[in-house]
Amino acid sequence: MRIRVLVRPKAGILDPQGEAVKNALPALGFEGVHTVHVGRLVEMEVERSDEVDAMCRRLLSNPTIEEYEWEVVG
Amino acid sequence: MRIRVLVRPKAGILDPQGEAVKNALPALGFEGVHTVHVGRLVEMEVERSDEVDAMCRRLLSNPTIEEYEWEVVG
Repeated sequence: MRIRVLVRPKAGILDPQGEAVKNALPALGFEGVHTVHVGRLVEMEVERSDEVDAMCRRLLSNPTIEEYEWEVVG
Repeated sequence: MRIRVLVRPKAGILDPQGEAVKNALPALGFEGVHTVHVGRLVEMEVERSDEVDAMCRRLLSNPTIEEYEWEVVG
C-alpha cells in the first residue's frame, strides 16, 4: 500500500524555509500570501501500515521540533 | 484559504533523501518498505488561489526535476 507522510515544524518552532519563501513572493509579484510553512513529504510503498507510526517517530520526523501525520493513499 | 502544495522528484530523477531513508529502515528493524520518495510540503494561507500554480512553477518547485500538485485544504 502507498503511504503519504507529511512532516511540518511544530507551531512556534522557527521555520526559516517558510520565511524565505514568504519574503520572496512579493518580489516575484505575488501578493496576498499571509503565511508559508515548509515541511517534508515522504511517500512510501509498504507491505503493511502497522509500523508506519513508529517509522515516523524514529526516522522520518524529529518529534522534538516537528509534527507529522500520515495516511494511506492507495 | 489554506493551500497545500506537494513537490516531489520527477520519475527517473535521483532521490538521494529517499534512498537514504529506504536504506536506513532495515537497520532500525523496519522491513517490507519497497520504495521511499522524499519531497517538500508547502502550506500557505492565501487570499485567492488563481496565482498558486504560477507560484509553484516559479518559486516552490524546480520544474526541470520536480513535479508538483496543490489543493485547497480549508
